[in-house]
Amino acid sequence: MAYLNDHYLKLKSGYLFPEIARRVKVFCEGNPKAAARLIRCGIGDVTEPLPAAVIAALHKAVDEMARRDTFHGYGPEQGYEFLRRAIAQNDYRDRGLEVADDEVFVSDGSKCDCGNILDILGHQNRIGLMDPVYPVYVDTNVMAGHTGAADESGAYDGLVYLPCTPANGFVPEIPDGKLDIVYLCYPNNPTGAVATRAQLTAWVDYALKNRSILLYDAAYEAYISDPQIPHSIYEIPGALECAIEFRSFSKNGGFTGLRCAFTVVPKALTAATGVGKFTGLHPLWLRRSSTKFNGVSYVVQRAAEAIYSAEGKTQVRQLVDHYLGNAQVLREGARAAGLQVYGGENAPYIWAQAPAGVTSWQAFDTVLKEANVVITPGSGFGRNGEGFFRISGFNSRANAEEVARRLQALKW
Amino acid sequence: MAYLNDHYLKLKSGYLFPEIARRVKVFCEGNPKAAARLIRCGIGDVTEPLPAAVIAALHKAVDEMARRDTFHGYGPEQGYEFLRRAIAQNDYRDRGLEVADDEVFVSDGSKCDCGNILDILGHQNRIGLMDPVYPVYVDTNVMAGHTGAADESGAYDGLVYLPCTPANGFVPEIPDGKLDIVYLCYPNNPTGAVATRAQLTAWVDYALKNRSILLYDAAYEAYISDPQIPHSIYEIPGALECAIEFRSFSKNGGFTGLRCAFTVVPKALTAATGVGKFTGLHPLWLRRSSTKFNGVSYVVQRAAEAIYSAEGKTQVRQLVDHYLGNAQVLREGARAAGLQVYGGENAPYIWAQAPAGVTSWQAFDTVLKEANVVITPGSGFGRNGEGFFRISGFNSRANAEEVARRLQALKW
Repeated sequence: MAYLNDHYLKLKSGYLFPEIARRVKVFCEGNPKAAARLIRCGIGDVTEPLPAAVIAALHKAVDEMARRDTFHGYGPEQGYEFLRRAIAQNDYRDRGLEVADDEVFVSDGSKCDCGNILDILGHQNRIGLMDPVYPVYVDTNVMAGHTGAADESGAYDGLVYLPCTPANGFVPEIPDGKLDIVYLCYPNNPTGAVATRAQLTAWVDYALKNRSILLYDAAYEAYISDPQIPHSIYEIPGALECAIEFRSFSKNGGFTGLRCAFTVVPKALTAATGVGKFTGLHPLWLRRSSTKFNGVSYVVQRAAEAIYSAEGKTQVRQLVDHYLGNAQVLREGARAAGLQVYGGENAPYIWAQAPAGVTSWQAFDTVLKEANVVITPGSGFGRNGEGFFRISGFNSRANAEEVARRLQALKW
Repeated sequence: MAYLNDHYLKLKSGYLFPEIARRVKVFCEGNPKAAARLIRCGIGDVTEPLPAAVIAALHKAVDEMARRDTFHGYGPEQGYEFLRRAIAQNDYRDRGLEVADDEVFVSDGSKCDCGNILDILGHQNRIGLMDPVYPVYVDTNVMAGHTGAADESGAYDGLVYLPCTPANGFVPEIPDGKLDIVYLCYPNNPTGAVATRAQLTAWVDYALKNRSILLYDAAYEAYISDPQIPHSIYEIPGALECAIEFRSFSKNGGFTGLRCAFTVVPKALTAATGVGKFTGLHPLWLRRSSTKFNGVSYVVQRAAEAIYSAEGKTQVRQLVDHYLGNAQVLREGARAAGLQVYGGENAPYIWAQAPAGVTSWQAFDTVLKEANVVITPGSGFGRNGEGFFRISGFNSRANAEEVARRLQALKW
């Protein structure tokens, strides 16, 4: 008889966002008037259309697919050379970082890559994650059998949660014990925090010393405004030997619906076999890609390439500035409402502390019912998210301003 | 220290097609004149442009992405309702098969799904595969740790290979022993064979009796010409309780470069937990999709929807008929050349037997050097592929005719 993967049965309830969707649906069905003025600042989805350069590239690529002599069938699983080169050149080499074209793997999403990367890693690794944390890191480890059961707070036995709090600026302290794999995400989702060069250097040094691997999620890199903050983990000496970096076109070019991202697996990066012999991970990821993936749509890769054109860069800058402007409006509004507020300066997310004694889900319900605004309860991201909530800056400016006003009018 | 997944180190050499590409490259560099007349009938990639209905749908969807009020960000991970409904209605319900919209999961490729499906299955399953076989089924099981090492023929310890030969019409006999998971692919890649209703019924009965699961790959369904041959495993009574079906838009609509496919996971399908309690696989696959995937590009889903429009259906039919016409030309040419030939009637592939004593790779080299045609060596698909080679019908008619001529002129 066929067996299923028992580890899936350990997963707690639904993924965070389906639960939010459920509560919003129930509320809206019972309150049609409030539903009509609902503003969504929950899920981190972009709202503005694709840049003109991207649209033009899409139309051109579609026309190529209509003619036999310019039609594109199967492409290289790791991405077309034109896109890998554009990424490596613009995002890395132009910034003085030695990333080769073939260390860049184009994919259909960072979420996929963050989960799939576990395929090439051993089951015996001791895994550290930030808390609060992007749920995908946790859930994919549960699915892979790297954990025991969850406790009441949703924390799984077998994972090492690294607290991220106002006290440490939402960047975890270097642990005493040894971790083999550590997930780091900066600019951070959900807290909107960034890690300084010194903090990242401490983590890279830790990884090199312990021969650990950092899984560095930089999906929000475009939002960094402070010139002192590193955009890539590879700005830290030694990181090419200990870090995999995940990037996305979702939040800069607005590709959440178009789907394109990339992952950098440096050739200098090694990990140990079961008998302790170190060997490169690059060939393993290459093999995984060519066996379990068939590449990103040709038309979408041409669209991603357009982000690196001169006009593409200008248009992406305008998009990011728009969302950062929203974040500023929301941050000031939440602050004026008397809330303690973090993030929103180098990230599209505001991380607000609910008034004393109010839990995250209570805050969610209050803001939904009283202000008709959807936010994300911080406890959905882990134990240390309790008492916080996330407000997303992905919206129109008018909506951001309206949310800022409503937050100030809100009675807790 | 970080550990890698040791199972990857068991994988034999490269994937079949990179090795073919390498040999072709070496030959072409040494023989520029022959290179100029090279015709590729190796990899199963389509050659004709996308249907006009698909192109129109793509342009329209791209324009939607350019305007704020019609922009699409994150979509449902399992696919938009418009596409799931079109698939379930046209491919199943219109043929009398009770597949619900939400049993259809839209993905970016059948290759991905065939690999990813192992995520939700247990490691203790006894796995059966056809031989010759699509290498992805094998390699993904190796990566997941379901096998021991490979022997000289490339067969992995721990997998059960089911011989597919001219004697059984390339449909494996029902085994005596119990298999928990069985991969079946019809119309078959690489042999071009189809399975009759009686043969599929025997397999479904076997699966029901043993509570096994059939992983049914029907990527070439559109090529079935014989009205007696089932298009879907769900045409067999009971299959909704024991089979997952993989389908693709690659070989009907020509989406190899655009990327869209789907997998049907029926709600009636169950598998056992480690303690032998049967529970549905549908919620597990749903959870996997929403956690490790972010859906197919909106524009590509609109393109796939267009395949089900009246004009889309007509245009797809023309494409498929074109490739089937090539297959007929190639089949007749190979037969006239004195080869024993299979397939090519309900599939785009010809499965030719090399002259006695000639191995698959010898045949590959001879056909490359003497006829300047790239074919696929049968032994790359498994031990029972030895002595055979695959000729792909994905080409222009002129090329198919030229290949037919060259095969007849070939001296072995």
